[in-house]
Amino acid sequence: MRNTTLCYVRCGNEVLMLHRVKKAVDENKDKWIGLGGKFEEGESPEECMLREVYEETGIRLSSWRFRGIVTFVSDEWGSEYMHLFTAEAEKGALPDCDEGHLEWLPWDSLTALPIWEGDKIFLRLLDEDAPFFSLKLRYQGDTLVEAVLNGKKL
Amino acid sequence: MRNTTLCYVRCGNEVLMLHRVKKAVDENKDKWIGLGGKFEEGESPEECMLREVYEETGIRLSSWRFRGIVTFVSDEWGSEYMHLFTAEAEKGALPDCDEGHLEWLPWDSLTALPIWEGDKIFLRLLDEDAPFFSLKLRYQGDTLVEAVLNGKKL
Repeated sequence: MRNTTLCYVRCGNEVLMLHRVKKAVDENKDKWIGLGGKFEEGESPEECMLREVYEETGIRLSSWRFRGIVTFVSDEWGSEYMHLFTAEAEKGALPDCDEGHLEWLPWDSLTALPIWEGDKIFLRLLDEDAPFFSLKLRYQGDTLVEAVLNGKKL
Repeated sequence: MRNTTLCYVRCGNEVLMLHRVKKAVDENKDKWIGLGGKFEEGESPEECMLREVYEETGIRLSSWRFRGIVTFVSDEWGSEYMHLFTAEAEKGALPDCDEGHLEWLPWDSLTALPIWEGDKIFLRLLDEDAPFFSLKLRYQGDTLVEAVLNGKKL
């Protein structure tokens, strides 16, 4: 059981994404994901998110929105509670990131990239400006086998 | 690091509370708290809450509201992420509960009971019908030494 964060940092119609191509062993290997990582001891969800965004990009966010919690259950990776945020930032120079390649991409292009199947569900919820949600996604390997939104099966 | 739930189940102006008087070793010993407990493997926040409410009271909730996350940091008990819910239920016979004594109490009486100091903050947020919030509470022993709401110190 682990707690993590994911933040989509946007500038207008673009979003800052990480292409996870650098680590040999990585459950997100070769996928594009937003910014974030694991909670350190005693961090609140937003403290973890702010630290991870800064470590990965050098960006210090001054505001954000906490959008939902995604419960991932997997037969391969154990369960994860991902705290989902969105934020706005100005574009600037991007540092080298240990975990992958950083790039600003059009928001509308995300669903066409190699991303997790279930990510499309919460991307849609963000697009719809859904109120705070709890989404449970169950995977067998890379295959999404169940999705439950606020206690109701999708 | 552990994930837990707390649910205030209300019926009109009353709320179902648990007086934690039965366990010898209990960080909530002698305090009144709402219903809830620890996440089991793979449970979403609402699945944990629904199971705990049923186990403690026999009540099967059909709807609920997910109100916030409270990050507790303590020098005595380690950190905890408490997922806070409210729900409505009808009054019925109450079972014996292993963890304490169950009683319907007036909602307005809670802040006068032996409760944690920080609980008063999230009870106020619930009363104000605040949008989903992230509240961090830092304790030294029983003393609240810091409270941070959505990233801003109170």
